[in-house]
Amino acid sequence: MTVKQLSLPELVDACRDLGVPGVGLWREPVQEYGVEGAAKLVRDAGLAVTTLCRGGFLTATDPVGRAAALADNRRAVEEAATLGTDTLVLVSGGLPPGSKDLHAARRRIADALAELAPHAEQHGVRLAIEPLHPMYAADRCVISTLAQALDIAERFPAHQVGVTVDTYHVWWDDTAPAQIARAGAQGRIHSFQLADWTTPLPEGVLNGRGQLGDGAIDLRAWQRHVDAAGYTGPIEVELFNEPLWSRDGQAVLAETARRFTEYVG
Amino acid sequence: MTVKQLSLPELVDACRDLGVPGVGLWREPVQEYGVEGAAKLVRDAGLAVTTLCRGGFLTATDPVGRAAALADNRRAVEEAATLGTDTLVLVSGGLPPGSKDLHAARRRIADALAELAPHAEQHGVRLAIEPLHPMYAADRCVISTLAQALDIAERFPAHQVGVTVDTYHVWWDDTAPAQIARAGAQGRIHSFQLADWTTPLPEGVLNGRGQLGDGAIDLRAWQRHVDAAGYTGPIEVELFNEPLWSRDGQAVLAETARRFTEYVG
Repeated sequence: MTVKQLSLPELVDACRDLGVPGVGLWREPVQEYGVEGAAKLVRDAGLAVTTLCRGGFLTATDPVGRAAALADNRRAVEEAATLGTDTLVLVSGGLPPGSKDLHAARRRIADALAELAPHAEQHGVRLAIEPLHPMYAADRCVISTLAQALDIAERFPAHQVGVTVDTYHVWWDDTAPAQIARAGAQGRIHSFQLADWTTPLPEGVLNGRGQLGDGAIDLRAWQRHVDAAGYTGPIEVELFNEPLWSRDGQAVLAETARRFTEYVG
Repeated sequence: MTVKQLSLPELVDACRDLGVPGVGLWREPVQEYGVEGAAKLVRDAGLAVTTLCRGGFLTATDPVGRAAALADNRRAVEEAATLGTDTLVLVSGGLPPGSKDLHAARRRIADALAELAPHAEQHGVRLAIEPLHPMYAADRCVISTLAQALDIAERFPAHQVGVTVDTYHVWWDDTAPAQIARAGAQGRIHSFQLADWTTPLPEGVLNGRGQLGDGAIDLRAWQRHVDAAGYTGPIEVELFNEPLWSRDGQAVLAETARRFTEYVG
């Protein structure tokens, strides 16, 4: 998504040219290209698929909506398996229309995972609950902290359900380092993502994630936290950023790789 | 600020007409009108000043900026005393330019309060640290949770330093009810404010606070939390909302009073 202006073949070429060894994919461009075709494309290029984003949106109260969400998440698990990644990132979903009950919405996510987690295991895929910044609690993700995500993940074996740590979402939280340690001790850090925090936030607050080094987050400190917690998996950079999307995709990818080296690597 | 389109005399008249018994004032319109004159205006109308907003912005690292902030906060204390309110609300301030160290900024706030709290006590004024929503952590308020606010407040006697509970800032936080109980047990809930959470958030995320009942927050549940914690003080409604500011102020105040009765009172 950092360079969504690139087609999948262009992305694969750009990663190869820059020596980027792995890529997190999103479902929409993969489905558009064809899941089997996308899997062959990245495999033939020797590129690892680090995660598939995203499943989730599991907070519906009506039976039809709930069944549709579960069916869609089963497909997402199967797409992840086809792509050869072991991790499906989940964004839980917001409050249903008219509801003000965050607790009930969080309970429904746990209930849905009880159905999805065994299916995921059968396909060799781990679910990674991603807490999103509290500014998304109403309309996108009722799970706002690593503590909340782990409280749910702990109901399942670690090889079924863990968490995603994304600096953009947790950087403000002084309890997050302890929660990263908790997650690491249980083998539940299934994904680690980077974005920087820049202001002012744009309308809707979706597409203002800053290029690494442009914002307020001490990225290296968060890398040390996941390192200390025993995380040895890939580090993804996930920027939703209109100005970056409006530029040449290969140039943005090259810039991002340089920033990664400067601020993290 | 909910009806900042009204002058102070218009505000006082509108409160009297609607039977609103108290009002939280902001420093800028009070200073513009004259602090002594504003004090006489509200006193003569029999209107209580519930709080003065706001002091704070105590995160500067340079000695000149720090001294200026402390002097300004001493003036704010004196203005609160002149207005006859016992509570000055503090918004801590964001990261200094170029800094990525939230912890150091939080430490500087505690250091500044050690200088301000005795001065406030001498004037019969309590300081109320207001945690702001984590989306303001970089540029406005490095204190993002009630737990963080209380960790600092507890270094001082409760009659010197407490907290402000604002539904807009804490509604997403499942640990906030326990922190409200903690604050109440210590006599540190110095102010309780209401606003609703509506989406999409506007650019800059400052002026999108929703009219009571328009959003995702179960306001009555939060009122029950502060009630259960022993809070018996005033309940303020603080909406920063461009559409509300563009309407007739008296009509907005009347609507707000009706919504208060419907959703809280």
